[in-house]
Order: sequence, then structure tokens, then C-alpha cells
Amino acid sequence: MKLKVKELRFMAGRPIAILNSWTANHMNVHVGERINLSKYSDDIVSIVDVSRDLISNNEVAVSQEILESLNIREGDEVDVSPASKPTSAFYIKKKMDGLVLNKDEIHTIIEDIVNNALTEAEIAYFVAAVYKNKMTAQETEALISSMVSVGKRLSFPGVVADKHSIGGIAANRTTPIVVSICVAAGLTMPKTSSRAITSAAGTADVIESIARVEFTTEELKKIISKVGGCMVWNGVLGLSPADDKLIQTERILGLDPEAQLLASVLSKKIAVGSKYVLIDIPFGESAKVDKKRALDLKKKFEFFGKKFGLNLKCVLTNGEQPIGRGIGPLLEIRDVIRVLKQEDSPKDLENKALFLASELLELSGKCKKGKGYSLAKEILTSGKAFHKFQSIIEAQSGKVPTIKEIEQRLGKHKKDILAPTNMKIKSINNKKINAIASSAGCPMDKGSGIYLYKHVGDNVKKGEKILTIYSESKNRLEEALDLYKKINALS
Amino acid sequence: MKLKVKELRFMAGRPIAILNSWTANHMNVHVGERINLSKYSDDIVSIVDVSRDLISNNEVAVSQEILESLNIREGDEVDVSPASKPTSAFYIKKKMDGLVLNKDEIHTIIEDIVNNALTEAEIAYFVAAVYKNKMTAQETEALISSMVSVGKRLSFPGVVADKHSIGGIAANRTTPIVVSICVAAGLTMPKTSSRAITSAAGTADVIESIARVEFTTEELKKIISKVGGCMVWNGVLGLSPADDKLIQTERILGLDPEAQLLASVLSKKIAVGSKYVLIDIPFGESAKVDKKRALDLKKKFEFFGKKFGLNLKCVLTNGEQPIGRGIGPLLEIRDVIRVLKQEDSPKDLENKALFLASELLELSGKCKKGKGYSLAKEILTSGKAFHKFQSIIEAQSGKVPTIKEIEQRLGKHKKDILAPTNMKIKSINNKKINAIASSAGCPMDKGSGIYLYKHVGDNVKKGEKILTIYSESKNRLEEALDLYKKINALS
Repeated sequence: MKLKVKELRFMAGRPIAILNSWTANHMNVHVGERINLSKYSDDIVSIVDVSRDLISNNEVAVSQEILESLNIREGDEVDVSPASKPTSAFYIKKKMDGLVLNKDEIHTIIEDIVNNALTEAEIAYFVAAVYKNKMTAQETEALISSMVSVGKRLSFPGVVADKHSIGGIAANRTTPIVVSICVAAGLTMPKTSSRAITSAAGTADVIESIARVEFTTEELKKIISKVGGCMVWNGVLGLSPADDKLIQTERILGLDPEAQLLASVLSKKIAVGSKYVLIDIPFGESAKVDKKRALDLKKKFEFFGKKFGLNLKCVLTNGEQPIGRGIGPLLEIRDVIRVLKQEDSPKDLENKALFLASELLELSGKCKKGKGYSLAKEILTSGKAFHKFQSIIEAQSGKVPTIKEIEQRLGKHKKDILAPTNMKIKSINNKKINAIASSAGCPMDKGSGIYLYKHVGDNVKKGEKILTIYSESKNRLEEALDLYKKINALS
Repeated sequence: MKLKVKELRFMAGRPIAILNSWTANHMNVHVGERINLSKYSDDIVSIVDVSRDLISNNEVAVSQEILESLNIREGDEVDVSPASKPTSAFYIKKKMDGLVLNKDEIHTIIEDIVNNALTEAEIAYFVAAVYKNKMTAQETEALISSMVSVGKRLSFPGVVADKHSIGGIAANRTTPIVVSICVAAGLTMPKTSSRAITSAAGTADVIESIARVEFTTEELKKIISKVGGCMVWNGVLGLSPADDKLIQTERILGLDPEAQLLASVLSKKIAVGSKYVLIDIPFGESAKVDKKRALDLKKKFEFFGKKFGLNLKCVLTNGEQPIGRGIGPLLEIRDVIRVLKQEDSPKDLENKALFLASELLELSGKCKKGKGYSLAKEILTSGKAFHKFQSIIEAQSGKVPTIKEIEQRLGKHKKDILAPTNMKIKSINNKKINAIASSAGCPMDKGSGIYLYKHVGDNVKKGEKILTIYSESKNRLEEALDLYKKINALS
């Protein structure tokens, strides 16, 4: 069908074409489906939106991507037809029906995902298929290598090391401490982190409260060559762009298929050129995994790590309650600074960070087996770790604030929760605590969050403070309080 | 986050808001996700698109739906925040995890689908969950009643009857013949049909080659009261709007979960007020279902039909090859007219239509058991059926063309396929024949398609014509020929 071009004055990040509903009906295409636009020998596939008015039957409104690609302008005529399904749609159907995909088929799917050739619905079908039917070891290996091959690959001088936590534990902000200790010990750590997915804050959200976290790969290289390490957001680096898209789609229902979890973590570690990788798998009641699944994941991470030439070790840690006292960007950075400055340090956070740092120092050969803990401890208590933290934050255009400065930025609206009776804390539910912190405004509002005074096992007297909820907005504080009353986050 | 409104000069059929990529990152929302826009006490949920330029960090471009709903205009400030997941997303996750949904949960999902509250990806997850985990009888019943309750319901005077084929057989254009016979016999038949989904043409595509098929429900009522029946497209009537959306999403991978197939058919029959429903289930090698599945479907259709107070009967028919000679809109309407005029009538099509008509006449009590065939035959051979067909086509603003007029409109580009050797036709594959007809331009190009000279079992001499491919475009004819050479549609 020949249609006249109208210009949409925006770049949508992918080609978008709007048809009049009559035209769409007659072409038998619907919102979210694909059409092919062609002019002379050029053509481009676009996602369809449908408009009831403002576009006539003989017109198609197109985004800038299409104008540029076909070298056309408003008023030109283009040939428009329904686009055929990409081959990867057949492979997704195959996987949905429980069959095993080969390497090329997986690669085609991953390539189509990064090239915007698959719609959100198609990617959702792929996620659902992998979630329901799982992947074999061969499929998972192909998924990892495909994800790496469609992204950028960096390489840094020195002994390049990395740590990763599978997440799910509230607070648990060990990364800035581990990075500061290990980089001070001489390791190179190009640490890239995510923003909050299911928690109240990711490392990127936390660091962003005092420094920049979005850099190009060129800027990243400069930071690493200057200070040896970084703590940046992985979302803009394009290290594993297929993973970035899959994660968006998984978030919709909170699905987390194992093959994609493995591929997500490993593809990013391989992409930044890490040789030594420590993976923290917290397990327990309200953690992401129980002990059985944790042991299974450990085996799989180590298996695929070896396949891709990584020195990879998994440690299982206690994930029964939050680690540290603050939950939310500024409350977490305060905990981190307290540990690094060794002033009123939350001991559970300090101990876990020292444990992880010592494991990574030993794994990477920075010290002998059994000597990691004393080395890490020395670096922390001597102030070397804090000094390294300061240089990294400054290299990321930030400045380490004083505790007082942080406290001035905490949410103005707050509410103490007191023990209704004498009690012993039996459990603190990570998911529920995270949900309350989110409803208080985390991670968008850096000063919102929860401060926990108690740990599991503590005895609390009637009227004693259990926790404080902070929020930058009065409404959100009330929402968080309502949620607190509805769900039993502590018992 | 407060953002300044920019106006998008189109209605997208649902609220669309475009954020700058920086703003989207900071809000942690991605393409296809939802944001909440509010002004004073009004708010609206919108799907997000992301733009790299033309919108600044402090702006949001919104479609007309949003401007109208919030009563705002360009330059106003609105409050924008990530929207929380709709409750139905949790139910979809529940179904994905293999749990059973209750009536209210299914109703919430269906309501959110029609209210545009679910994204394409979320609907895809629902389809995948039902495809993989199936639905119980209670769930299926809830699905049918929810689909009916969110759509329009019509009612017509007289004995309201309907027929439906589950499809999958090439050509097989019995509907116009059955409707003409049964309406001539005094039944009321508000027949709504789909356009092609997996075949070369749906009844709506075929009738559209000689009449209008898109009407409002008001227009539909007028047609029925005037001539007693119609053959229109169901896509614009809003009879089962949830089904229309689910079908779009199923099409993406060609999934056809059984519960949705049952709900799709029955919800539309209930919505038009049918009391007597005949369902044709063709089975066989290249049909949609084999005999076992056909018998199972029959049981289920009859079970749910009874639940909803329908007099429903399923007939299993031979689906091993196309029914009729023409495949494609104009070629099929020619077969239909040949049967109705009793001139050079394709006997397989005539016999199947007479069989279905007789079953429906008996089911609806228009004649005694055993008398349906002779009644149907009399109506057909006397010309009453053709006369009724003419009145319906005219009521739908069309005119029944002569065979010659049809032939003048067939694709100018055509190619005869001759038998390469003496042979006996062993099989004709419906799916492959449909695929070839589609690549020749069906159903968009009304004059494209395939004319079959042979049936399964026929002996063919070397050089004798087996079929002719018609196309409105030279390129498409070549594509269809290429495809014909690649796949064995006949053997």
C-alpha cells in the first residue's frame, strides 16, 4: 500500500510508525506489530501504533529513525506492508513448546533483541519460555556467549577482579567497602552495578547520592587508570545490551529464570574483562533463594565461570535479615562511610564486607590462603580503604560528605516505630522491608528509607524504638506507614 | 518528578507519554512500562516511550488522551512517577507459576486487558501462562463469562442461530452458503467473522471483495431487521474486545491455547445472542487438530455451551484437503456464487455447506430430524438461497457480481503449475497451500490466490494443470512460485 509520509518530531529510540485505524485494519496489523516501509531499494521494519484521527487513510506518520534510514521527508510516498515475522519468533515458539535451541538459534534471538527486531511481547514470550522450560547447559552457555558477543568488551591492565551479589537482601551495601579495600590492596576493579530492581536501592542508586554513576566507556577507562577502581551504573555502558533488555522484560512480572540470571551476571563480568570473580549468594527465609537452590546456583556459576575462563568462586552467606542498619540510598551510604571511617560502624556490614574482601584477595592471589582477613582488616582500620573510597568518589565527580551532611539530606518527614510490648525479634523480612522503603520513595528519593535499630534475636522493651521510616514526602511517609501496618515485616 | 507538558498531535488509541532518556533512567522506567501522570486530583496511567532528543529532561510529551483526561495543555506542569504494577500482573505471575486463578482474578485480568491497563508484554505473559499451564474447567468458565461481561451484548428477534468453523482448512468458504440457506429458511443469523489469521482469507476478507463488512452495532441491527442475516467483520463491533486483544497477542507466535479458543468462540456467540450454535471441527493431517483433539474439543465446546445456555452441537468434518477450488478472496467468492447459482458448482463445497445447513436447521427446530438435508437442498436448488445472498450483500452496500466480472478482477499475473509426470495426488497440505496464497498477496490483494484443479485421489497426466497461482503483483507471483518450489504443498 502506498502511503504519504508525515513526520513525527521525535526519536523513539527505535522506528515507530503510526497508521490510521482504517489503514491498519486493512493491512491487518495491530498496535505493537511490525510493518515494512520501503522507498526505492531501501527498507526498514517499524513497530506500529494506531491513531484514530489526525492521520488520514493514505498517510503514515514516522519517527526520525525512519526518515533518516529511508532518506525521505514529509510528503514523500512510501510502500507500506505488513512485515513478516523475524526468524527468531519461530525459535521462541520452539522453545515455548519445550524443544531445545541450538547455538545459532539462541544467537539469532539475542541479536534480534539488541537490534530492536523483536517487540516487547516477543521478548516476553522468550522470557516465559525460558522460565517455564528452563535451559540446558549447552543452551545456557550459548546464551552467555551470545550476550557477550553482541555487547562491548573492555580490557584493563592489572589483576582485574569483581564481586557480585545475587541480591534480595535489604541494605547489604558491601560493594563500596569491598571495592575500596581490594583496590587499595592493588586489584583493578571496574565495578559496574545495577539500579534497584526488587530492592529499595541498588549500588548505583546509593553511589549516585554522592557522585556521578553514568559514564561512557572512555570515561570509565580514565577513571580506572587514575584510581584503579570505580562504582558505576551498568545501564548506559552497553556491556551486555541484550541483558539490559531481558531484565526490563523480566521485571514486568518479577520473573528471574535461572539461565538468564547466570547469563546476566557472567556476560557482564566477561565484558569488563574480569579474571577473578567472587559471587555472594545470600540464602534464607526471605532471601531470593533457599540453601538448596543456593548450592545449586553455586555449582552452576562455578561450572560456567570455568567454561569462560574465569577464576570464579561463590560464597553462601546468611540472608535471613538486612545487613547494616540503613535501607535507602543516603541511609546506606551513611553505613558505608561509618564502616570505612570506623566510626560507629555497623558490625554486621563490616564483618560481611571484610569476609568478602578477604575471599577476593585470596582468590586473586593478592595474598596467601588464610591471610586475606588480616590484610583486609589492616587496610580498613589503617584508613587506606577510606582514602581509596575518597579517590574513587572524586574520580566520579563526587565528594564524600560528612555524616552530618548526610543527615541534613535525610527525608524531613519521619516516624519512629516503637515496640508495642516487650518482645524478642524473631525475624525481619527482606522483601517486606524493601517494599516499605520503596513506598517511602526509594530509590528515587535519595533521603527516603528505613533505619533499623534491631537485629534478629534482640530483646526489645515496650516503647523502645525498633525502626524509623524517613521520607522526602509527607504522602509517601503515610503510604509507607500504611504498608507497615498491613504487612508483618518484623515479628 | 514535576515535568512540563508537550503536546503530541495524535491519538494513539491509548495514553502514550514520551520521556527524555535521562528522565526515564532517573525514574527507572523503560519503553513499554507505565508511568502515572497527575494534575491536582486527576491522574492517568500511561505507557512510556523514550526519546533521545527533542524533549528536554524536564519535559514529557503526551498524547491527546492524556491532555483530555487531565484537562491540561502544552506548557502545564504535571507530576510524573513510575506507576505501580496493576493487581492483574500478580495474578498473571500466579498463573505462570502453575497456580489456579479464581473467578475474580480472571475477571480483573480481562478487565485490565480491555481497559488498556496491561501492556503487550503483560498480555503475552498471560497467553504464555495459559498456553503452558492450561486452564481448569472453572477457569475456562470464568474466562468466557468475563469476556462476555466486558463487551457489548446484542439481541435479535426470531430464532437466532450461528455457525462457526475452528478454521485451518484452505478455501472452505461454507459460511456465505450456510447463512444464505438458513436465513432463507427463516433463521436469524447475525454472523460475525474474523479476517485471515493463519489462512489466506477469512470470511470477512472474502465478503469484503463484494460488499462492506465493517458496521456499527446500530447498522448491524438495521441489516438484520431488514434481511434476517449478515456476514460482517467482528473486529470493529466490540462484541468481545478482550478476545480481540488476546488474538492479536496469540498471533505473534501463533499460539492457540485451548481455553482461549473456547472462550473466543463462545464469548462472541453469546454476545450476539445466539441460541443455536453449530461448530465445525475439521480434523486431519494438515488441519488444526487430529481426530483425538477434535473429539476432545467437541466435548468441551458442548460442555461450556450448555453451561451458558446455548443449544450447541459440534460436527467433525474431513479436513485433509481444501474445500472448494479457489483460495483467496475473489477466487473463493466465485466458488460461493457458483454453488448458490448452481452453475459449475464445486461439489465438495456444496456438499459440506448443505451438510452444515441441514444440521443447523435441525438443531434450531426449523425442521424435523432427518429432514434438514432435503430442506437445505430445496432452498439451494430453487434459487431462494441465492436470492437471500443477494439481499444480504445489498444490505451490506454491495452488489453480487457476475462470474465474468469476478474474473476480470482476478490477479493479472498468473502461472499454471503442470504435473511434471503422471501421478496420483496423495495429499494437499492446507498450511502450505495457505502460505503460498499468502505470499501471492492474500488476503490484502483480493484478486490474488490459488485455483486448484485437483483433489486428493485424482490421477493426473504429465503436463496436465494442477493449479494456477494468481497475483496482483509480479513480484509476489514470483515469491509465491519460489515458495511453491521450496515446500511440497501437494504430493
